[in-house]
Amino acid sequence: MVIIGELINSTRKKIKEAMQNKDAEFIKTLAVKQDEAGADFIDVNAGAFVTDELEKLEWAINVVQGVTKKPLAIDSPRVEAMEMGLKLHKNGKPMLNSITRESDRWKQVFPLAVENNVLVLGLCIDDNGIPDEADDRVKIAEQIINDLTKAGKKIEDIAIDPLTTPISVNTNFGLVVIDTIKGVKKNFPGVKLITGLSNISYGLPARKQVNRAFMASCIVNGLDGALIDPLDPIMMSIIFATEAILNKDPYCGNYLKAYRKGIVVKE
Amino acid sequence: MVIIGELINSTRKKIKEAMQNKDAEFIKTLAVKQDEAGADFIDVNAGAFVTDELEKLEWAINVVQGVTKKPLAIDSPRVEAMEMGLKLHKNGKPMLNSITRESDRWKQVFPLAVENNVLVLGLCIDDNGIPDEADDRVKIAEQIINDLTKAGKKIEDIAIDPLTTPISVNTNFGLVVIDTIKGVKKNFPGVKLITGLSNISYGLPARKQVNRAFMASCIVNGLDGALIDPLDPIMMSIIFATEAILNKDPYCGNYLKAYRKGIVVKE
Repeated sequence: MVIIGELINSTRKKIKEAMQNKDAEFIKTLAVKQDEAGADFIDVNAGAFVTDELEKLEWAINVVQGVTKKPLAIDSPRVEAMEMGLKLHKNGKPMLNSITRESDRWKQVFPLAVENNVLVLGLCIDDNGIPDEADDRVKIAEQIINDLTKAGKKIEDIAIDPLTTPISVNTNFGLVVIDTIKGVKKNFPGVKLITGLSNISYGLPARKQVNRAFMASCIVNGLDGALIDPLDPIMMSIIFATEAILNKDPYCGNYLKAYRKGIVVKE
Repeated sequence: MVIIGELINSTRKKIKEAMQNKDAEFIKTLAVKQDEAGADFIDVNAGAFVTDELEKLEWAINVVQGVTKKPLAIDSPRVEAMEMGLKLHKNGKPMLNSITRESDRWKQVFPLAVENNVLVLGLCIDDNGIPDEADDRVKIAEQIINDLTKAGKKIEDIAIDPLTTPISVNTNFGLVVIDTIKGVKKNFPGVKLITGLSNISYGLPARKQVNRAFMASCIVNGLDGALIDPLDPIMMSIIFATEAILNKDPYCGNYLKAYRKGIVVKE
């Protein structure tokens, strides 16, 4: 599983304050903690700043890169922010989070995704919004994948987000995500399926439990990665355990290693 | 999900001692706690007593029935113990745990399973033992189901245990259980699939995490019930959450009700 640590996101109040006040220690601590907890990418988002997103994102990227060698997920809807993020990026191959099939954004971000050595995350949205049905989400995913590969993008550098939407809004949305994962995997087994899965529990109590159950449910159906809070040790434990159960972890080696590191926990 | 509370089992040291010493309070407390935590059946097993299983089982069944109205799972390999257990049983339809396709046991237990109003749990074992492959387990299950239904047993009173064996022994055993569940469900959608899933984690550290991940993985693939420790609130939370995710819980009603009762917990 590819774990993207989601915590440094300006839509969270404390992060916005830290970015506002240039509280580097707060951001550094979260970066290091997510790194140590097993995150493969550290997401950095300053999108809550409407007028000075670029300045805040530049500061945050530099702060995070000062304390971790993990690659970043450059998280913005704005092409200028992505472009700057990619230029500032130092360690390994970054993730571009994200591109959609909306005409305007597609035209702007597509060249960035193709011309840079990045893992691009494509969201199942087009000019009509987020489809309610899995089949329609799969169609958007296939458009994104076909256009990117035709332009020379390697299949292993493409990720699709089936788009997790809350079961409190529509109790079928869990199955829609699962069916979208299966649908995309069927025709494009080399493409990674990655989602920000905590949206599933929006509007419900005890959200962590729904997120954990959804994680296992999605891994069983082919999910390759997720934006999560890696500081939830039970979530991390369930990820390693599910991979061992599905025989994706020879001799349960990764599970045992994670246990010795304290990433998999007893309770 | 059908939850069978597994804790009153004489293979557990403290239970054996309590049965030995006729410590009714200890057994009562465990029965009540499992009932309150959401168990649908309370398993009672005195099989660790080789010479006086019947006497110990009789005592335990009466103690448990003194404090809960939940039906029991009469848990023994011995036909005499099952027969006595069924006679003592008071509340609702009990579970017979269990029957196998081994010739000797089959001949003895088959009449009991057919002639009584019980939910019978059939294990995928025959005279050659537990098959390593899912296809062979499915074949045994189908023999059990066909023989029982031909003798007039209703399909909804038949449960099959795919038999959970440890991934520390063979890393494919998680998938074998999943594939057995899917295989039996395909031809017999009315049969319940129920397993004692904590065996999956035998020999690994942090067993609870593996059990939780396995629970979600099995529910996604059609598991209907499990023998578990219902006093693990995270396990119970994940069960309710998984059913909500799979759109088996209209308006997340059961999930919300379980949250209000304290069965689904926040952390």
